[in-house]
Amino acid sequence: MSNPRPRISVIVGSARPVRVGRQLSDAVASVIRDAVDADVQLLDLREIGLPMLDEQFMAGMDMYQNPHTLTWARQISESDAVVFVTPQYNAGYPASLKNAIDYLLKEWKGKPAAIVSYGGHGGGAAAKQLREVLAFIGTDLVPADLDLAITLGRDDYREDWFLADGDAVAERNADGIRAIADAVAGKLAALAPASV
Amino acid sequence: MSNPRPRISVIVGSARPVRVGRQLSDAVASVIRDAVDADVQLLDLREIGLPMLDEQFMAGMDMYQNPHTLTWARQISESDAVVFVTPQYNAGYPASLKNAIDYLLKEWKGKPAAIVSYGGHGGGAAAKQLREVLAFIGTDLVPADLDLAITLGRDDYREDWFLADGDAVAERNADGIRAIADAVAGKLAALAPASV
Repeated sequence: MSNPRPRISVIVGSARPVRVGRQLSDAVASVIRDAVDADVQLLDLREIGLPMLDEQFMAGMDMYQNPHTLTWARQISESDAVVFVTPQYNAGYPASLKNAIDYLLKEWKGKPAAIVSYGGHGGGAAAKQLREVLAFIGTDLVPADLDLAITLGRDDYREDWFLADGDAVAERNADGIRAIADAVAGKLAALAPASV
Repeated sequence: MSNPRPRISVIVGSARPVRVGRQLSDAVASVIRDAVDADVQLLDLREIGLPMLDEQFMAGMDMYQNPHTLTWARQISESDAVVFVTPQYNAGYPASLKNAIDYLLKEWKGKPAAIVSYGGHGGGAAAKQLREVLAFIGTDLVPADLDLAITLGRDDYREDWFLADGDAVAERNADGIRAIADAVAGKLAALAPASV
């Protein structure tokens, strides 16, 4: 193989037109890329643009019918691990992220996974709810004490509500991001013999 | 006024093309209608068809721009109380419902609210997460011990995955639905002097 490195996908959970999630995810991906030997890519739910869940059958029946579902299933299948970057909206996860999760089921099973949350109130409440969902669908989550909740202050925002400097936010949370990256890499290393 | 009765809106939380939520909500609304002196209407999120949250500004800034947001805000403002009928997807609430909630903020504050959840695994996990969200946004929830979680068995479904008999499901949960209706009515009665 020309490229035996595992693929880690950073899932951009927010899909709002004005959002910090993309900048933050780019910066988080950059820290992960520097920390571990892996291909790190973004899966941006705004770009992917899944409609509100419109499959006829429940995901567990494994009878996906829509092209957007099949594409999304392939993107997750081709990811060896996933890092969810989720905003906290009203003490919970955003619809965009839950929608993307609920489209699939078998693709999540056993997938190494970690959570980075953020918001004006931090992101711990969203992370807690998301962890319950990810545990239920069978992802292989890193320990909860590694969940990284990033609190954004007014100074982090520009006037247009994008981030002034995503890299600066990631830098001050770099230890937490690297701890997640190491834990995910550890899971991938443990899986490697079986996945050859 | 020709119609001084309060309006209770039953919010159909599921928006999937194949779902039991509409049938179940119709049946729940019927039990509520018989139990209390109120106008009981459905707000069906599939019919309302909100796109994935696309407002430029956060709901708390009260700068709604899109016609679909303004319509939804009016529908909630005109509701004196809301009963959320939510499916449980993967131990959480569905994207369709969280999306509708996150569109608004001030419209929810102080609104008497109750939760009916359902699913093959019951609905208690979804109700618990939804309660955290509804408490955060400031709805006036009935006590948690009234949350009604309806477990649907195989026999409840037709071959096409709609309900065989929504009224039968509501009937075997009628005590729980009536308890919710009474609690909501009690809150409305307490609010009445202020709303004249």
